[in-house]
Amino acid sequence: MWRASVLTIFPDMFPGPLGTSLAGKALAAGTWALETIDIRNFGIGVHRTVDDTPAGGGPGMVMKADVLANAIDSVAADTRPRILLSPRGTPLTQARVKDLARGPGAILVCGRFEGVDERVIEARALEEISVGDYVLSGGEIAALVLMDACIRLLPGVMGHEASGQDESFSDGLLEYPQFTRPQVFEGRPIPEVLISGDHAKVAAWRREQAEKLTQSRRGDLWTAFSDRLGPAKKPPAKG
Amino acid sequence: MWRASVLTIFPDMFPGPLGTSLAGKALAAGTWALETIDIRNFGIGVHRTVDDTPAGGGPGMVMKADVLANAIDSVAADTRPRILLSPRGTPLTQARVKDLARGPGAILVCGRFEGVDERVIEARALEEISVGDYVLSGGEIAALVLMDACIRLLPGVMGHEASGQDESFSDGLLEYPQFTRPQVFEGRPIPEVLISGDHAKVAAWRREQAEKLTQSRRGDLWTAFSDRLGPAKKPPAKG
Repeated sequence: MWRASVLTIFPDMFPGPLGTSLAGKALAAGTWALETIDIRNFGIGVHRTVDDTPAGGGPGMVMKADVLANAIDSVAADTRPRILLSPRGTPLTQARVKDLARGPGAILVCGRFEGVDERVIEARALEEISVGDYVLSGGEIAALVLMDACIRLLPGVMGHEASGQDESFSDGLLEYPQFTRPQVFEGRPIPEVLISGDHAKVAAWRREQAEKLTQSRRGDLWTAFSDRLGPAKKPPAKG
Repeated sequence: MWRASVLTIFPDMFPGPLGTSLAGKALAAGTWALETIDIRNFGIGVHRTVDDTPAGGGPGMVMKADVLANAIDSVAADTRPRILLSPRGTPLTQARVKDLARGPGAILVCGRFEGVDERVIEARALEEISVGDYVLSGGEIAALVLMDACIRLLPGVMGHEASGQDESFSDGLLEYPQFTRPQVFEGRPIPEVLISGDHAKVAAWRREQAEKLTQSRRGDLWTAFSDRLGPAKKPPAKG
């Protein structure tokens, strides 16, 4: 069973959208498990304070190292990675998602306010992961992103086991365009090759489309893809 | 008022996490508005079918162009951008979030299954936006990401208007490390400069830290930042 432990000051946000659809069914079926830890339970004083003003000044509030450390320490130590969702982190990729989905689960720390005291990140060896180059109100929706991406890859969650192999990023390319009935939509026909019944031609067309799309939309992915393909095209080096 | 219209087969997922916290308060206060359109209401036949098998074969199901077009056409035409959340799209950035937050809102189309019939993307001029280089079970959580990022920037939503200026990506850099009381946490003191009271020194230290962090963690952002700074450092060209 894939186990997610989420540390947050908004436990009510979970499972949220992951309580319905395929993820919700998988949760009910015990394919994955969710535990939320309310950071406020580790807050200080009658107000259960979890944040304080930034040292050196500036706007907003910073989550306290001592409070967060106690919350983290309340989760039984195990082999799951401890992840802080943060725009300063390593960008999440489909390769990392696959790794995480193969593993035992994740401990997900949701930051809030202007950020989290740097010392708890170091002292508890939190791995910072970013879901994208934008700023959210907190780590909660980022945690939902990470969990959704992992859960759909767990055995039995997707209808077809084959799903997930032939999609964006699975081989470093964006996915080829898809079509379905009706055969003509507002004067636009389905490309003829797709209804030819020639599987080899279909596969070649899709590959070509995926490469074209990646090249035109994502120069960065295309460069990485070409670099990776480069040596394979050359004859093997001698000696 | 910033208006979001979300087209989805899972309307119950909304507002979800955006119904609590700052976004929830702002929703109640009328700073933004949310409308959900159930794509299934435009489905075909007694089963309200919204998907069909991919032309050319392959796993999974594709959302039908005719169904989705009818759902889109049910939303009153206005100046809001029509966005399809898709891993094949242009990566969402904080700059784009700021643009969207300044605008009238967004019409957000949530794809599902293996994808969406390419012809409706073209025929309805949907702008494809990706929240990151990974695959989600559908566009719903991606729509939550986009809305959360925009809503926190709407006037009055964040406590400090200043928040949002001094954070990751606001000037092309990751954010500097933050600290707050206690002054010593598990033997780790707050860096002395931050308690010096010297605002110029604090600002210089933070800038240096942000640059170092960006350089070590995000070569791509650092290159873009340096390129942008490059010409400014040179003396202005004559004539």
